[in-house]
Amino acid sequence: MTQPGTIDRQPGTPRTVAAVLGSGSWGTTFAAVLADAGCEVRLWGRDPDVVAQVNTERRNDKRLPGIELPHGIRATTDARDALAGAGIVVVAVPSQSARETLAALREHVEPHAVAVSLMKGVELTSDERMSEVVADALALPESRIAVVSGPNLAREIAEHQPTATVVSSTDPGTAALVAAACTTGYFRPYTNADVIGVELCGAVKNVIALAVGMAQGRGFGLNTTATIITRGLVEITRLGLALGADPATFPGLAGMGDLVATCSSPLSRNHTLGKHMGQGLSLDEAIAATGGTAEGVKSCRSVLDLARKAGVDMPITAGVFAVLHEGLPVDDMARALLSRPQKAESVA
Amino acid sequence: MTQPGTIDRQPGTPRTVAAVLGSGSWGTTFAAVLADAGCEVRLWGRDPDVVAQVNTERRNDKRLPGIELPHGIRATTDARDALAGAGIVVVAVPSQSARETLAALREHVEPHAVAVSLMKGVELTSDERMSEVVADALALPESRIAVVSGPNLAREIAEHQPTATVVSSTDPGTAALVAAACTTGYFRPYTNADVIGVELCGAVKNVIALAVGMAQGRGFGLNTTATIITRGLVEITRLGLALGADPATFPGLAGMGDLVATCSSPLSRNHTLGKHMGQGLSLDEAIAATGGTAEGVKSCRSVLDLARKAGVDMPITAGVFAVLHEGLPVDDMARALLSRPQKAESVA
Repeated sequence: MTQPGTIDRQPGTPRTVAAVLGSGSWGTTFAAVLADAGCEVRLWGRDPDVVAQVNTERRNDKRLPGIELPHGIRATTDARDALAGAGIVVVAVPSQSARETLAALREHVEPHAVAVSLMKGVELTSDERMSEVVADALALPESRIAVVSGPNLAREIAEHQPTATVVSSTDPGTAALVAAACTTGYFRPYTNADVIGVELCGAVKNVIALAVGMAQGRGFGLNTTATIITRGLVEITRLGLALGADPATFPGLAGMGDLVATCSSPLSRNHTLGKHMGQGLSLDEAIAATGGTAEGVKSCRSVLDLARKAGVDMPITAGVFAVLHEGLPVDDMARALLSRPQKAESVA
Repeated sequence: MTQPGTIDRQPGTPRTVAAVLGSGSWGTTFAAVLADAGCEVRLWGRDPDVVAQVNTERRNDKRLPGIELPHGIRATTDARDALAGAGIVVVAVPSQSARETLAALREHVEPHAVAVSLMKGVELTSDERMSEVVADALALPESRIAVVSGPNLAREIAEHQPTATVVSSTDPGTAALVAAACTTGYFRPYTNADVIGVELCGAVKNVIALAVGMAQGRGFGLNTTATIITRGLVEITRLGLALGADPATFPGLAGMGDLVATCSSPLSRNHTLGKHMGQGLSLDEAIAATGGTAEGVKSCRSVLDLARKAGVDMPITAGVFAVLHEGLPVDDMARALLSRPQKAESVA
């Protein structure tokens, strides 16, 4: 018997078919996790060289140099081919063009498929979270959307470093289905029902990583870094609570865990771009030195929009915005963290 | 008019007199903060060479090499001299011998003095927090005790890196008095009334730093590090709530802030000793390679005692204890974090 979204592997052991849209480092890594977890994986990418190398050499040297991919991944540039029979559709395309990309693929998505967003950020044109963009663009109910987020530096997962993550969906069945499809000896999902909180953490962490990079570029040390990370989580929490998130998400793996991992990684683009600005480059110069922009630069404005609409104070995010777009010196931003009137410490 | 605990600097501007007991790196650094904040500081140390160098060269090259200390610190080996007229008595001596050290000084403490503990850890013989030890040994009521804790790597503060901290006391007046005495342009205290929570965070963070060191020594990366820090704060929170702490302390500077700073510092003794064990050394070999033991090695047993009495599960602390004292391989400890049954993420 063939169930929707699975193919017969041998009698009685149907295998989940998963399409991964996007052959960047996180999409390729997650495809490898799904394959290691026993799924039949189709990896859709636009770059014919990447697709050919995945199929012939089981490598993606452009985005994951040196990593040998598992068997069980077939790459294709044909979205219809990737999506046919896929019960799980993983979306790992650039966030700001995701709506357009997905709208063009929508007709090929199986009627009962579940979609999984790996994307972080907020859509600039709509201020929507990425799961909202996916739901809109694929015309799926929120019960069939999940998001995956946590302390998940892609390269380390591709190297089979032990990693924990959060699979979040408002529907417990959807969360459990996705979690089961990506559980391996090195990748351990925890389920969670707070999609709003998980996605806000994923979006704002990039802004906080910019702030940490700026401070480190200016020569500030670990006391300042730890303070920015701590106060950063406080302001993420404040925004999340105003938007109806579950307070338990923020001290968890998708909140604190991802924030600490992202802010500790000297390789992250947000950290690197922030560091260049801390060293005195303008935004344009820093983007050039980083080899492109960073997600936090884009999300910063949308996060501030959300905060203003919710009536929430986000001093670090506002400081990063002012450094990026209004010429505020990094020194003033970092010292502003310490110059508020002496008072009791509080999340509220 | 001379008020208790102050001396006349000029008419109408009494200066707080503070005694700092202990001329290690944190005691010396805090003495410099107090002096920069305008206090008249007496630094008590046992080592006559350190005392002489502070007085003649304004340096403590043994513990803070390269740092020029401010004017306004007078060092002495005579506790009576240090404590005479001191309205604030800061305690920064080795935690496991603090009770004995303080008992010998007690008669010289001014009757209305406030005591400030900079010490982290739990006394092995009693399982008491350090503020309880200070209160016992100096026969002071808890309303005249404060503790200072936060993302406070001493060397960075001595270099005037901008740093935030928490001054905690059950008495708001005591917290405000101590906060005012140590506020400078680079050192910013927030007050807090949850001494139990602040001290538990300060004690257990060293155990979590050992775990991070062990994982990194074994070759695990930032995903694992961030997961240990995140789940570490969860288990500190769990213990704290069982012991009556305020939940708001744990995501704050003395909780998450200090934990992130301590676990990020490759220079901390706990991190270094853990790393040596992760690389395969025995506890004795790791202590030798580190040049001495680390606070987390001592606190680990007391923290587990507290957790057992409170009926609280602390898997990372238990894992560190098993690696330190029962020969558990680090691999088993790190992987145990990921091998719990698939479940919803939760602090409870």
